[in-house]
Amino acid sequence: MAQQNKNDSITSRDVDFAQWYTDVCRKAELMDYSSVKGFIDYLPYSYAMWEEIQAYLNKRFKEHGAENVYLPMIIPASLFNKEKEHIEGFAPETLVATIGGGKELEDPLIIRPTSEVLFSDMYKRLVSSYRDLPKMYNQWCSVVRWEKTTRPFLRGAEFLWQEGHCLFETEEEASKNALDILQVYNDLGKDVLAIPFLTGKKTEHEKFAGAVATYTIEALMHDGKALQSGTTHYLGQGFAEAFGISFQGRSQKLETPHQTSWGVSTRLLGAVIMVHGDDNGLVLPPAIAPIQVVIVPIRGEKPEVQEACKAMEAKLKSMGIRVLLDNTDRTPGWKFAQWEMKGVPLRIEVGPRDLAEGKAVLTKRVNGEKTTERIEDIEAQIPGVLKQIHEAMYQKALDSLNQRIVDVENLDELNAALDKGGYARMAFCGGMECEDKIKEITHGGTARCIYSYEVKDGAVCPVCGKKATMVAYFAKAY
Amino acid sequence: MAQQNKNDSITSRDVDFAQWYTDVCRKAELMDYSSVKGFIDYLPYSYAMWEEIQAYLNKRFKEHGAENVYLPMIIPASLFNKEKEHIEGFAPETLVATIGGGKELEDPLIIRPTSEVLFSDMYKRLVSSYRDLPKMYNQWCSVVRWEKTTRPFLRGAEFLWQEGHCLFETEEEASKNALDILQVYNDLGKDVLAIPFLTGKKTEHEKFAGAVATYTIEALMHDGKALQSGTTHYLGQGFAEAFGISFQGRSQKLETPHQTSWGVSTRLLGAVIMVHGDDNGLVLPPAIAPIQVVIVPIRGEKPEVQEACKAMEAKLKSMGIRVLLDNTDRTPGWKFAQWEMKGVPLRIEVGPRDLAEGKAVLTKRVNGEKTTERIEDIEAQIPGVLKQIHEAMYQKALDSLNQRIVDVENLDELNAALDKGGYARMAFCGGMECEDKIKEITHGGTARCIYSYEVKDGAVCPVCGKKATMVAYFAKAY
Repeated sequence: MAQQNKNDSITSRDVDFAQWYTDVCRKAELMDYSSVKGFIDYLPYSYAMWEEIQAYLNKRFKEHGAENVYLPMIIPASLFNKEKEHIEGFAPETLVATIGGGKELEDPLIIRPTSEVLFSDMYKRLVSSYRDLPKMYNQWCSVVRWEKTTRPFLRGAEFLWQEGHCLFETEEEASKNALDILQVYNDLGKDVLAIPFLTGKKTEHEKFAGAVATYTIEALMHDGKALQSGTTHYLGQGFAEAFGISFQGRSQKLETPHQTSWGVSTRLLGAVIMVHGDDNGLVLPPAIAPIQVVIVPIRGEKPEVQEACKAMEAKLKSMGIRVLLDNTDRTPGWKFAQWEMKGVPLRIEVGPRDLAEGKAVLTKRVNGEKTTERIEDIEAQIPGVLKQIHEAMYQKALDSLNQRIVDVENLDELNAALDKGGYARMAFCGGMECEDKIKEITHGGTARCIYSYEVKDGAVCPVCGKKATMVAYFAKAY
Repeated sequence: MAQQNKNDSITSRDVDFAQWYTDVCRKAELMDYSSVKGFIDYLPYSYAMWEEIQAYLNKRFKEHGAENVYLPMIIPASLFNKEKEHIEGFAPETLVATIGGGKELEDPLIIRPTSEVLFSDMYKRLVSSYRDLPKMYNQWCSVVRWEKTTRPFLRGAEFLWQEGHCLFETEEEASKNALDILQVYNDLGKDVLAIPFLTGKKTEHEKFAGAVATYTIEALMHDGKALQSGTTHYLGQGFAEAFGISFQGRSQKLETPHQTSWGVSTRLLGAVIMVHGDDNGLVLPPAIAPIQVVIVPIRGEKPEVQEACKAMEAKLKSMGIRVLLDNTDRTPGWKFAQWEMKGVPLRIEVGPRDLAEGKAVLTKRVNGEKTTERIEDIEAQIPGVLKQIHEAMYQKALDSLNQRIVDVENLDELNAALDKGGYARMAFCGGMECEDKIKEITHGGTARCIYSYEVKDGAVCPVCGKKATMVAYFAKAY
């Protein structure tokens, strides 16, 4: 069904997707560019969604035993330099404070780009016996990465995230933790954001600086590009060794703990915008929509219309539904377009004609589906309708994802597939150099995650010609 | 009732209050000193309390129309310098970043010590008409102030807080907002922290750098020193003028908005520790206690004891009570001391003897009050018991406050009163220089807030001898 673009101020997705994205971010008042390049203001309409994500994750993390903490926003340069791979990965994009209280600092302070270093340094002080383990601490904070090119929510000089950092006695427990939280992130997609993620292990080329294994959730955007939306890492014992964390084990011997870290960020909001949005603007999943239901009065000056709208608003509010009654002096048509642009999942129109029959009109943002319902039934129906909307959004995104996964067997096919957009599934050797080559040949295509270690008999890597060891999803990515 | 110190590792309050405070912060695992002087790690036991404070305030702020946002953690130096008084107040204690991505920055970036500047800069972009007002944005974040001497929660190089920044059409609305939020803070003390605050306006000497009027909540610590625990400011039009914020008014004329800001910080946790704590450690108000009820089994190896404890734990959990069943292999006596030290409001002992009669023993941390109750009644009673504990804590703190307010009429009396600790209420002229003198004479005494503008006939300022214009509470403060 072709949709007419009702908001002239928003560029069409298929004309210029990047411009569409920026238009939506601005017009829907999700963010504002601050006075410092690359730094944005997170306005209430996006921050409220982040708070819903926080609430969901806090509950799920707690089920896995994690506790929230807060560690300093700065890392002494001397400490930052302890884990070699890690510093190499992050040093080029750090912001560094050199003056405190008017004086030059002896040890410059790096504004945290991630906090493995600080957590490791703290755990060294807190952990001395197996009785102190596991330690599963998480923090909600912002991090700074001095990026050259930035885009709202997707890549910024400062973004909001959570970072969990855990210590375990054994590799088994730590690996399980990295996979458990990957499942939490996947559930967040399915149950909250209405986004189907591809999940799996990263290749050697793509894993986190300092990790043994990195797992990822990957979302597919409307333009066919992938967005890495969250990662969990099994860090092995590297940080613990670098920072001297050890504990008295059950057999009285001194042992080195196994570590994990995991995080998702406000990048998830970028995924929500780009997976669900259309030419009329945002389409928000009900679970995080700051306004789940908007009531638009038709001829709102009539007392009976006002009365019906207010009663409905009060009732929905009492049910815990985030509802807004739009009583501004704009025309109903203007309001329809406005709330469509803002992605409100459900609109209810209350006008004198329907009202005379005790009815009102419900319109679902996701598919424009309109139904006329008896007002006395509406309130009881709303939770179910919001659930339907969620499911319709998820299914739409899943269909779109499934349609854009193709199996390819050589570099020509890969190139063609990635040019078209979406994922190409291909066997290869998993080697760093071959992936470098693939990136070069495809102008930016990377392995997003490993699909399987089972390869067809005789399958070879299309780059080096050696035996293929894995099948991976390749895509161009944000 | 004299209490015996059961934790040898905690210094007695009356021997060395500062050491007692540090001991409690460490032993109760509220915080850990990080590797950078002045920066602390907020551990789960303190952070969980902060989250309860956040939940309460978010709800209350929302009732007043505030919305949460997140703004950058850095302020360009060029922007920071726009409001003169403000910069003079904060510049000496800033942390400044000068290197980004390996290159020297043209405009150094100040790590935010407070965000009036950023909010004003943003509002300039967002506000152009009276229709855009009021704007009431709040953010939860950390701020950095390069302090020379720091103490956990009370004064730190980095602390957590919320900062609300609002714009209104009129002075009246803005002043009302500053007082409304003062009331919210006062309620937080009464209903959540069990702390009675003195509330009022700050003198000229003590008000915020850049404010027209500052209002404060002041708590009295066990050692007789006051702790400023939160402030709200009516900022007038100064920031708006400095940053060029204006709006098309209702009469079509260009007008300048009136601004407020308000904040409380993790300093509140310091207040909770120092108001309620005793020689055995923390005493936590139930509303923020991470563990509200601890169940200690006596002869926990007996199946009937385990069964009763687990049933009670499950029941209380299902009621939304934060309960812990301590099944570790320590002795009951050790556990009693441990959970007393951690300030858990209510302890329930379940042992075979009482259990045979269907009973268990409840002990309130605030006053050591013990009662033996029928287990089948306990669950229904717990919410009421926690309420009683809250009220007992509040009353105890209120009695202590009231006993330590004295009226004085001259500098000798003031000096004697402040040496003893607590508040001295005294009439004076309200002048900056007289307050400077008072601070000098009393070795640090300051006006904590104005009690009244009604002064006795003929009352004069004891410093300058001129007519007194106000009565203020004076105290030594943290």
